Amino acid sequence: MRLIAIVLAVVLPGMALADPLPSWNDTDAKAKIIAFVDSVTDPAADTYVTPADRVAVFDNDGTLWAEKPMYVQAFFALDRLKAMAEKDPSVLSSDVLKAAAEGDMKTVAASGEKGLLEIIDTTHTGLPVETFIEDARTWLATAKNPAKDKRFEDMVYQPMLELLSYLRDQGFSTYIVSGGGIDFIRAFSEKAYNIPVNQVIGSSVKSKFEMVDGVPTVIKEPGVFFVDDKAGKPVGISGRIGKRPIFAAGNSDGDFEMLQWTTAGEGPRFGLIVHHTDAEREFAYDRDSNVGKLVRGLDEGPGLGWLIVDMAKDWAAVWPDE
Amino acid sequence: MRLIAIVLAVVLPGMALADPLPSWNDTDAKAKIIAFVDSVTDPAADTYVTPADRVAVFDNDGTLWAEKPMYVQAFFALDRLKAMAEKDPSVLSSDVLKAAAEGDMKTVAASGEKGLLEIIDTTHTGLPVETFIEDARTWLATAKNPAKDKRFEDMVYQPMLELLSYLRDQGFSTYIVSGGGIDFIRAFSEKAYNIPVNQVIGSSVKSKFEMVDGVPTVIKEPGVFFVDDKAGKPVGISGRIGKRPIFAAGNSDGDFEMLQWTTAGEGPRFGLIVHHTDAEREFAYDRDSNVGKLVRGLDEGPGLGWLIVDMAKDWAAVWPDE
Repeated sequence: MRLIAIVLAVVLPGMALADPLPSWNDTDAKAKIIAFVDSVTDPAADTYVTPADRVAVFDNDGTLWAEKPMYVQAFFALDRLKAMAEKDPSVLSSDVLKAAAEGDMKTVAASGEKGLLEIIDTTHTGLPVETFIEDARTWLATAKNPAKDKRFEDMVYQPMLELLSYLRDQGFSTYIVSGGGIDFIRAFSEKAYNIPVNQVIGSSVKSKFEMVDGVPTVIKEPGVFFVDDKAGKPVGISGRIGKRPIFAAGNSDGDFEMLQWTTAGEGPRFGLIVHHTDAEREFAYDRDSNVGKLVRGLDEGPGLGWLIVDMAKDWAAVWPDE
Repeated sequence: MRLIAIVLAVVLPGMALADPLPSWNDTDAKAKIIAFVDSVTDPAADTYVTPADRVAVFDNDGTLWAEKPMYVQAFFALDRLKAMAEKDPSVLSSDVLKAAAEGDMKTVAASGEKGLLEIIDTTHTGLPVETFIEDARTWLATAKNPAKDKRFEDMVYQPMLELLSYLRDQGFSTYIVSGGGIDFIRAFSEKAYNIPVNQVIGSSVKSKFEMVDGVPTVIKEPGVFFVDDKAGKPVGISGRIGKRPIFAAGNSDGDFEMLQWTTAGEGPRFGLIVHHTDAEREFAYDRDSNVGKLVRGLDEGPGLGWLIVDMAKDWAAVWPDE
């Protein structure tokens, strides 16, 4: 691709270079993204934004990779719980944990937030951060989405990979801002998206520093430290990045405040929502979904100037291996 | 300086380029720093570290700028409290706040952590993050250190500015990791140190997202969110950067765990402590100081291979305007 671009640039001066978003159809969505990027990168335009302020934030589940039938991290937690229980059955010390290990998702769902936190505390804490990340990486190397029989890591969205890459080529810094666990995302952000671990923002449990057998170690502890979802997303971005992004992409109402805060700033701003409309290639869901519920984004987003990406219509391909 | 470097490079190929640390005397300290940097940047050496892992962390107060007779942020809080009380005397709703506004530091000190938090809640919360940062910037533009009659912003350490710059030129990313307030540091990190706001880690109060007169806003709230000091420093670094640094610099026992964690990692590591030995040009203090207390670092640091920088002996200049 790059060679072609160079050849075109040399041989056909004045003609357009290679398409930066080849997996996007030639619809309004693609045109709007490119027009925005042009507007903030043209030094002669009064909409120009200095590279240091070209901050773009992306939700992860349902925005960069698939989140159906259930969050990838939930599959990880359940597999991990089963493996822990095989070694030591006493790990399943409550009805919720027993139900989770048996795959009885109804009971788990009925247990609400309390049950979920119990599963997280059991499967995500009590070990060094680095060990947890290695464990997640090992699991991801083979784990598959049962609904599509594809590896989770292969279920990233090709058009979004191109968008990330295009923005970075145009001087943006790209961050993940996810309701999911920060250390879980750090296990794959670099490999999957070319996003370094220091540009991952997510929810987290507490952690503490202690000497373990004489070795200074940071350990994951039970209990929530920060929930990076809904109104927590602008708070997380403000705390971590220290400035308001000019570009935000999400797919659910968990991203609403992030897009709201991003697009309310002065100067050019871009809000993007991935609308899951493609039951054939991916999944179709929005208002009534168990994950990625999208109501306000559809009702209020267009009035706020946000781009609603219609996956079936706007994406020529969904997966990298297509 | 740069022109000289270019001239030397062109005219005298093969000869050493300009000294990267001109304000450091030619002592062991300087030689050790340069040897370390050479060892991790030489691609042929088995001590080579890839640029993505060249993470360097710096404490702020007493490591990058002066912290005597009292932390700069404490001067800011007191000035701000006085200004608030002039507009509305009812702000001084407790004995600690009254004492602070009168400059009665004995009573403030006697009130302990509780009193300090009351002053922080009063002077640092209840307003948008962006407004607070602007206020701090305005104050810093003129505020002076009473002990030296110099602007606080002019009391950054020239040798440390050179060290930051040298490390960045050698592919390091440089972070501030301070017990001080993150938003206060963000008011000057870029201007003073060339460190962007997203590379500042510090203590913080809670914050929340809310609509203020229809405008989406992140507001600073009363109550501590995170204390980035002592054992909190490795925790803050792990959460924010997501990897262990290979270089850490501090000056007090509040930095001990950060240096301990940094230098315990595999491969080449560097721990540096600025020892304030220069009563003439700056201040001389360590074991018994009200700020920047340094005991463990002096007792255990050398045994852990850390470099103890003797300010009087190792630094040719202290201030940028010298």
